[in-house]
Amino acid sequence: MPTKYYIIYIQIVFFLHLRYGQAQVLYDFTAEPGNGELTVKEGETITITNQSIGGGWIEARNSHGETGLVPEEYVEVSVCVSQSCVPISWSLHSQTSNGNDPWTAWNSDTSKNLASVRNSWMSTDQEHPQAYQGPGKTAMDDDEWDDEWDDTRSSACYAEVDLEAAEEGATNRTEVQGPTRKITLNKFPGFSKSGPELYLLAKMLPKGKEKISVYMGEVGPVWLYPEVQMECLVADPKKGSKMYGLKSYIEYQVTPSTTNRPVNHRYKHFDWLYERLLEKYGSAIPIPSLPDKQVTGRFDEDFIKLRMERLQSWMSRMCRHPIVSNSEVLQLFLNHQDEKDWKLGKRKAEKDETVGVMIFSQIEAEAPELGLDEVERKCESFSRFTKAMDDKVKDLLAVGHDHWKRCTGPLPKQYQKIAKAFQNLSTVFSSSGYQGESTLTDALTATGKTYEEIATIISEQPKKDLHFLVETNLEYKGILGCFPETITVHKAAIDKLKDADKLVATNKISPHDKPVMAKRVSNMSYALQAEMNHFHSNRIHDYNRVMQFYLEEQVKLYETIAGKLRAALQQYTTL
Amino acid sequence: MPTKYYIIYIQIVFFLHLRYGQAQVLYDFTAEPGNGELTVKEGETITITNQSIGGGWIEARNSHGETGLVPEEYVEVSVCVSQSCVPISWSLHSQTSNGNDPWTAWNSDTSKNLASVRNSWMSTDQEHPQAYQGPGKTAMDDDEWDDEWDDTRSSACYAEVDLEAAEEGATNRTEVQGPTRKITLNKFPGFSKSGPELYLLAKMLPKGKEKISVYMGEVGPVWLYPEVQMECLVADPKKGSKMYGLKSYIEYQVTPSTTNRPVNHRYKHFDWLYERLLEKYGSAIPIPSLPDKQVTGRFDEDFIKLRMERLQSWMSRMCRHPIVSNSEVLQLFLNHQDEKDWKLGKRKAEKDETVGVMIFSQIEAEAPELGLDEVERKCESFSRFTKAMDDKVKDLLAVGHDHWKRCTGPLPKQYQKIAKAFQNLSTVFSSSGYQGESTLTDALTATGKTYEEIATIISEQPKKDLHFLVETNLEYKGILGCFPETITVHKAAIDKLKDADKLVATNKISPHDKPVMAKRVSNMSYALQAEMNHFHSNRIHDYNRVMQFYLEEQVKLYETIAGKLRAALQQYTTL
Repeated sequence: MPTKYYIIYIQIVFFLHLRYGQAQVLYDFTAEPGNGELTVKEGETITITNQSIGGGWIEARNSHGETGLVPEEYVEVSVCVSQSCVPISWSLHSQTSNGNDPWTAWNSDTSKNLASVRNSWMSTDQEHPQAYQGPGKTAMDDDEWDDEWDDTRSSACYAEVDLEAAEEGATNRTEVQGPTRKITLNKFPGFSKSGPELYLLAKMLPKGKEKISVYMGEVGPVWLYPEVQMECLVADPKKGSKMYGLKSYIEYQVTPSTTNRPVNHRYKHFDWLYERLLEKYGSAIPIPSLPDKQVTGRFDEDFIKLRMERLQSWMSRMCRHPIVSNSEVLQLFLNHQDEKDWKLGKRKAEKDETVGVMIFSQIEAEAPELGLDEVERKCESFSRFTKAMDDKVKDLLAVGHDHWKRCTGPLPKQYQKIAKAFQNLSTVFSSSGYQGESTLTDALTATGKTYEEIATIISEQPKKDLHFLVETNLEYKGILGCFPETITVHKAAIDKLKDADKLVATNKISPHDKPVMAKRVSNMSYALQAEMNHFHSNRIHDYNRVMQFYLEEQVKLYETIAGKLRAALQQYTTL
Repeated sequence: MPTKYYIIYIQIVFFLHLRYGQAQVLYDFTAEPGNGELTVKEGETITITNQSIGGGWIEARNSHGETGLVPEEYVEVSVCVSQSCVPISWSLHSQTSNGNDPWTAWNSDTSKNLASVRNSWMSTDQEHPQAYQGPGKTAMDDDEWDDEWDDTRSSACYAEVDLEAAEEGATNRTEVQGPTRKITLNKFPGFSKSGPELYLLAKMLPKGKEKISVYMGEVGPVWLYPEVQMECLVADPKKGSKMYGLKSYIEYQVTPSTTNRPVNHRYKHFDWLYERLLEKYGSAIPIPSLPDKQVTGRFDEDFIKLRMERLQSWMSRMCRHPIVSNSEVLQLFLNHQDEKDWKLGKRKAEKDETVGVMIFSQIEAEAPELGLDEVERKCESFSRFTKAMDDKVKDLLAVGHDHWKRCTGPLPKQYQKIAKAFQNLSTVFSSSGYQGESTLTDALTATGKTYEEIATIISEQPKKDLHFLVETNLEYKGILGCFPETITVHKAAIDKLKDADKLVATNKISPHDKPVMAKRVSNMSYALQAEMNHFHSNRIHDYNRVMQFYLEEQVKLYETIAGKLRAALQQYTTL
């Protein structure tokens, strides 16, 4: 499709947006006078006139033609296309845009509210209208523009409007399983309905080039680790645009330590990588989600910084994993030579058939076959541990959240009040007219200023230390959120093996299949154990590192405060 | 009245108590199961069965005969004697008995709720019933027992039940003027209704032995300071009893630096001293109130400690004052040789006629007479300053109150939660079964313990430093609360002098009276200026001292926390 058609197409879509930007008001909202707000009533239908206001607000027009700002959480947008209306929750992605409370973003539990299909309708700016993805649309040509939708091959009967996904990297997410895992069921045969039988009973295992070795190490089964651990740097976010400036995006420079040659990637490329890794390794290796998407404020400096930091953590974790780092798809992402190379690699990766449970066919354990009891015991133990750790990590996050709020809210306010009280006393003292007052009043003023500084120091501290403690725990929450499914696959395999005799008796499988299944279940267990040992080793490293960092910063904090108070103290007359 | 009659009398009173211990329930209260509490409803009448439970609780019986604990703030006690019922608020004096929040005691604003007559009905212990003071009772003999009531010469027609005053030092407080000043109007002719005319127009000034000199110092008019400043130590509170153990009290050892010979005094003796000083010097010198009285928990260790500390501060301030410290009545209090000496001295002091505004007759200023303008300007300036300082001191107290609550409530709770989160993580980590885990889990446990310690340190800190900052400001609130009346007397004198010509014209005064008045007003102004300079000098000293102390302790606090965190940090594996 030539470029000029795109522009016409976009313009049509833009007007469709304006026309179909209807929303239902969920709760009464009373406008504050003078703030340009609009009073709305529950149940009222309003028209969204600008959804890129940011800060949790949208602009809307009511039936009387009055226009004003309404909190986006108060409305539910219905996109009416053809005959169907799909409700959209506005509040899910309006996170961290003000940079004050990253917890809103961290607390991805809100995504539980996602409908079975994750729809979003957005336009970053009225000047940069997003294209509209109509129903029944099929994949376009795979160029840089078209691949916004290249996975949107939905067979669903409702209107699929996934413009955020379109912008940010498109996949048809037909199911969202919990806050941290998004599974593309129709592309992931190893999961749920299909189960591990595909691998356990496969007559012919695919002959993949990538072999995954498990060795017996000091701590038990371990992956084969490369001699040099790959690292990569995500840096230098730059705003790019195309379509004559109609479309903007952020591009990050990703530099692997292996080549030291940077490649540029947009969020949607990371998201593509995530999907491939999840598809390929998700049954055996926890592939944590990428940082959350964002509807508004995607070009805010704070948001870009936080996203980059999280992409960095995610990439580091992938690079640190001996299996994932060695994968063709990650190597492609980091090492492709040019656009053509990248496109070809993508097509190839998308055609990879050794995905889902079939990944276990690549496992080669240099160890004796494990008995069913042993396999089951290990699985139970990992299940218990990951569940328990998940609980405690969430507790720590909740405590961290509270502490963050206290340190940025009531506590500095308290110190400001103390500061003010000392300063006011100083002011009144200096009005006494009594001689020899100035040493005390100067000292009191200095004490007041010191407490003001302490207020600032305290309120800025969480960004310096608690942030990293929280980010690490969020990462672990993400990883731990992947284990239930890994363990489910594992347990399903165990159950299948337990049923083997019955299956033989009912001629569902042949008698030769049973030892094959047993061998394969043992293989799966080696993979799980290797992965758990990898997890433990990383966990000890990560928590050791982050706790030291946190405590170092906390020591500095209290020492700084003590130092400042000591300086204030020295201003008083020595008794 | 022989002793045996007293005992019978007390026993009758004790039964009257039980009989008349009726209370109205002010608010619904639902008992917590298993705590021995009693559920009561608003409006219900209950019978107090034990009001010496302490900790803010009383024991009561409802109409169904059920007995249990009820918060004393939830009930209003009616003492029904003769035909009249006088409501009593229980909550006014139940302070600091648990030692957790001295602010309840410090915030003496509650005393604004006092009825025009301060009634109290109490018994410290069932075994030590208090005597009941019937209506129309006249002064008894002045022995150690009878002087519990020796000022209770009320002509009021209602039942006067002032058993607290009876226990603690009895004066008939017919008016309570604000939280910090209790004026015995009928014994204080210099104040209010009588005004300063008594002094300004006196034909014959009393020839008191105590002359009060005002000199011109570097800062202006100053009192004549003694070469050695007297100090005194209030210490060693001991429980005493009499009436065969039926009556208990606390006696403090008071040792003046002049003689180093201790004398014993009960609270009621301090209260007697306070009344004398207020009577004698109140027009010219702020005489701050004694620490508040207490209904329940008077024998609690924490209460005794706090009261002693406050009596110490009060005594120190009196001893530090060049005029007050030199007064016969204070010397009597500190230096009486024996019981007989003390009694004689008391009688003499109570007969002193140079009280109220007549104190100004003792002032001798070695300086030229001040003009009316100058007098007025000084008075205005002191009035503004003391009012402004009063405001700021109250602000500081409010901030201190908040800070105290935060440091003993939410903040340590927060640190306990952080502690728990780290400890729980340690516990789950140690269940991993992974080798080489112990360094991290030990370090995490130690970190958790450290945060527990920090929680304790933080919650105990206010008692160590904020307490003294608050006590100093409470003292100043008390002193500043005396100035409005001092300044009122002063202003009334100024107004009188302004009216002098009119008074001469209408033959109210003779022409010779005017220059006498002018001289006396000038004298009053010298006294006020000397007192203000004394106040300023003390203020600078006190705030300098307390701020240094506070900051020193705060530095120690933050250094201690930093040290503890550093120790925790060192438990982690060095990276």
